[in-house]
Amino acid sequence: MDSVTILGLIAGTLTTIAFLPQLFKTWQSKSAKDVSLGMLMIFSTGVFLWLIYGIYLQALPIILANLITLIFNLIILGLKIRYR
Amino acid sequence: MDSVTILGLIAGTLTTIAFLPQLFKTWQSKSAKDVSLGMLMIFSTGVFLWLIYGIYLQALPIILANLITLIFNLIILGLKIRYR
Repeated sequence: MDSVTILGLIAGTLTTIAFLPQLFKTWQSKSAKDVSLGMLMIFSTGVFLWLIYGIYLQALPIILANLITLIFNLIILGLKIRYR
Repeated sequence: MDSVTILGLIAGTLTTIAFLPQLFKTWQSKSAKDVSLGMLMIFSTGVFLWLIYGIYLQALPIILANLITLIFNLIILGLKIRYR
């Protein structure tokens, strides 16, 4: 694996696991008042398109990162809708 | 400009402007209690690495999207630290 792909995988790992603290925080506090619903909806849509982009480019870091990021964001979106 | 690049630009536009509703929400409410500090810190670091990745790949959508996303996230991070 070349160094650029490794850099992409590290970048993708960070921008993916970044949503875990938010997910657990919202899960535990049962409060999402300060989290923007618009952000979650627009971001999830964009991440879905990045996933398609990555598939076209056959770029593994882009595919993996955006697939998992999409799952995390949809869970946070669900929690936001539930707890407001 | 080929259709894959256009798809990437649309994806990048969405995952970038997604942070504007959060930025304005936090700015207006002066409250960021429910927003995870860990998320903002890890995400900003990851976006910075995506920027470097995009420069190596010479992929315009990745460079543009991540540069502006980084700026928006650093502003939200500043607001989070200020308002808690």
